[in-house]
Amino acid sequence: MNSIQDLIEFVKIDTTSAKGKGEEGAKFIKDYMQSHGIEARVVQHRSRNPYVLGEINVGAQKTLLIYNHYDVQPVEPLERWQSDPFNPVEKDGKLIGRGVGDDKGSLMARLQAIIEMGKPPVNIKFVYEGEEEIGSPNIDSFLEAHKEELKSDYILWEGAGRGASGAPEIVLGVKGLLYVELILRTEKDLHSMYAPISKNPAWDLVRILSSLKRGDKVSLPGFYDKVKWLTESELKYLKSDRASMEKALGQKLPEDFERRLIEEPTCNIAGLYSGYTGEGSKTVIPSYAMAKLDFRLVPNQDPDEVLNQLKEFLPGVEIKVWGKVRPYRTSITSKISISLIESAKKVYGTEPEVIPNSPGTGPMESFARILNNNQIADGVGVEHPGSNIHSFNENIYVKDYMMAKEWMKQFLRELG
Amino acid sequence: MNSIQDLIEFVKIDTTSAKGKGEEGAKFIKDYMQSHGIEARVVQHRSRNPYVLGEINVGAQKTLLIYNHYDVQPVEPLERWQSDPFNPVEKDGKLIGRGVGDDKGSLMARLQAIIEMGKPPVNIKFVYEGEEEIGSPNIDSFLEAHKEELKSDYILWEGAGRGASGAPEIVLGVKGLLYVELILRTEKDLHSMYAPISKNPAWDLVRILSSLKRGDKVSLPGFYDKVKWLTESELKYLKSDRASMEKALGQKLPEDFERRLIEEPTCNIAGLYSGYTGEGSKTVIPSYAMAKLDFRLVPNQDPDEVLNQLKEFLPGVEIKVWGKVRPYRTSITSKISISLIESAKKVYGTEPEVIPNSPGTGPMESFARILNNNQIADGVGVEHPGSNIHSFNENIYVKDYMMAKEWMKQFLRELG
Repeated sequence: MNSIQDLIEFVKIDTTSAKGKGEEGAKFIKDYMQSHGIEARVVQHRSRNPYVLGEINVGAQKTLLIYNHYDVQPVEPLERWQSDPFNPVEKDGKLIGRGVGDDKGSLMARLQAIIEMGKPPVNIKFVYEGEEEIGSPNIDSFLEAHKEELKSDYILWEGAGRGASGAPEIVLGVKGLLYVELILRTEKDLHSMYAPISKNPAWDLVRILSSLKRGDKVSLPGFYDKVKWLTESELKYLKSDRASMEKALGQKLPEDFERRLIEEPTCNIAGLYSGYTGEGSKTVIPSYAMAKLDFRLVPNQDPDEVLNQLKEFLPGVEIKVWGKVRPYRTSITSKISISLIESAKKVYGTEPEVIPNSPGTGPMESFARILNNNQIADGVGVEHPGSNIHSFNENIYVKDYMMAKEWMKQFLRELG
Repeated sequence: MNSIQDLIEFVKIDTTSAKGKGEEGAKFIKDYMQSHGIEARVVQHRSRNPYVLGEINVGAQKTLLIYNHYDVQPVEPLERWQSDPFNPVEKDGKLIGRGVGDDKGSLMARLQAIIEMGKPPVNIKFVYEGEEEIGSPNIDSFLEAHKEELKSDYILWEGAGRGASGAPEIVLGVKGLLYVELILRTEKDLHSMYAPISKNPAWDLVRILSSLKRGDKVSLPGFYDKVKWLTESELKYLKSDRASMEKALGQKLPEDFERRLIEEPTCNIAGLYSGYTGEGSKTVIPSYAMAKLDFRLVPNQDPDEVLNQLKEFLPGVEIKVWGKVRPYRTSITSKISISLIESAKKVYGTEPEVIPNSPGTGPMESFARILNNNQIADGVGVEHPGSNIHSFNENIYVKDYMMAKEWMKQFLRELG
């Protein structure tokens, strides 16, 4: 086994689920597991990108289920990458390529750690998904169909990494998501001389969007009704490091940025399009205007309820739904949380950050509900705050990758 | 000469000035004039697309200058055309192709009428431009350089056609234009989980745009200060035909649509772009957002003043200027206006519509100012209200084309 080279081969495979790609990545990882003596198979279940299931049964009392995803986000804008996103290069101690941080790196680091251990102290089950980046549309029915097979005592989530403070990060939940596309149309494009008397869908879209946000707050009626704000005890485990976070994001941050990041639900414009967007000028009243919005939801918001609020608030607007995920939060006193915290301390020699829920999204709630398991937590990942996940020049430090492997081994020992 | 076939050959040449195309069209029309015994030449003057100048000197006392443009608007969205925009087809009495209405059809109808007359009753000069659709950025310096050569008593503008009422249209002015692109940026695209704490240029763009318009009115401070609203006598020559205009635009129209169309300045969103606009979802905070705006200006607004108002209102926003044209209006009692009205009555057997200024734009004010000529009017065109100029499936009726030729001949007789 060559740790980094094997990861590079995995990243070379384009698994952009938004473009219908991934199957080849599933086959790669299944073959990789089998070639190292791990039982593994590819399972096609409704989705275009199959699931990969695996198992190591050492006859222990307890079983850990490991969840990762092998699909990645689209790489556009391609011209902003300093190297080919699907041909990873190592530079200044970093590995640069699409998916090295989210989530191929964590998937491989954990798998290689287990292979190196030989016989882990707990039974291990693996489930790898290929549709996480498009909102896991089939995960519920997949879990329903395989719930006996996936029975476990603990679930280790997709992988966090190092937090803004530089300390290892443990995350006990995820935000939910509602991803929609708003579309407005008229019959045809018109010469812009008709602007004094014609509908312009682009103007209507601007009005609609500006009605959805007031300052930093979402102004969709009812949006905050079910939000469970953080308690004092949940807030006290946060470590904020403004300087490194500002550097990573390339922006100045507000005073209470860490609380906001975890606690606040959002409405984000991810895309806008209308009319002529090429070089120079075209004097046209567009017949079509579109916005892609992602709402990040916190416990106990529900994507279906928010969608209904949106439909009610915007009658007559065409709404396409591209993704729905419920939020989730687990307890800080659970066995899995404690094992993660203790192993992190030993390997890194520092207190980890413990975050009540990630600002990002994953189908954690589906696992909790369908597999009837309330010990789900995240840790043992390879990212750092400047990893640029979902953006161009996605990267990880090779050193972080090696540390994650050590953390995985220690975590399994604590658990066992 | 084969009227329609010759026009078709002209339309086949892609002269999209926004894409830097046109030279071949200039050569075509120069050759066409020469082959019919008209003195003509191509003049390169700063612009990428050259001007075409021509002259017929019959030794008359008075001289008419004819202005047209041979360039066209971009054809996108191409998939909405029912036939190739650059390979015109005749169907149900109509000719469909880019530029048949705006402005290649009027250019050719007039030219062919003059050729058919043999010896016109006034001297004629021709000036054909290749940059009208991108805001005529070089017309002023061109006119300055050729002002002796272009000296004339009357100027016939690019061609109107039939108005909303079906009657022939005469237009005594044009709106001005300011075309800008607003651009907002941050350092890099970010994963949308950072939305609670990050700047989003798309949201900032929405806020800025919504601050520029309130209901039907532009809310840029100072925008209406110099507007010269229409007088009762100017309003009384308007003929409104709601039904045909609504059919042409594919929309319901407000009560006072014709007054508004002529009198109201506008701020139109011609294009919007930010983030991910492909199929499916990408959860990203874009690092770039852009809007293309065209302001149509009326007498006595000034594009430079409006640009300054915009810069003052939007400090810190990057503003690219793609076009500036001043508005213009001529007198309804001038010789050229009367000749157009009388010839229209004789050829069409009906009262024409007389419009104080077009809702569209052209560099009329440059001609008035630089050539020191205040008899500039528009008529003798081939369009109808459903011509879809600047849009897909641009078309004219072949019958309208033939009538325009007759109108041209009668107009020259009235003028002479």
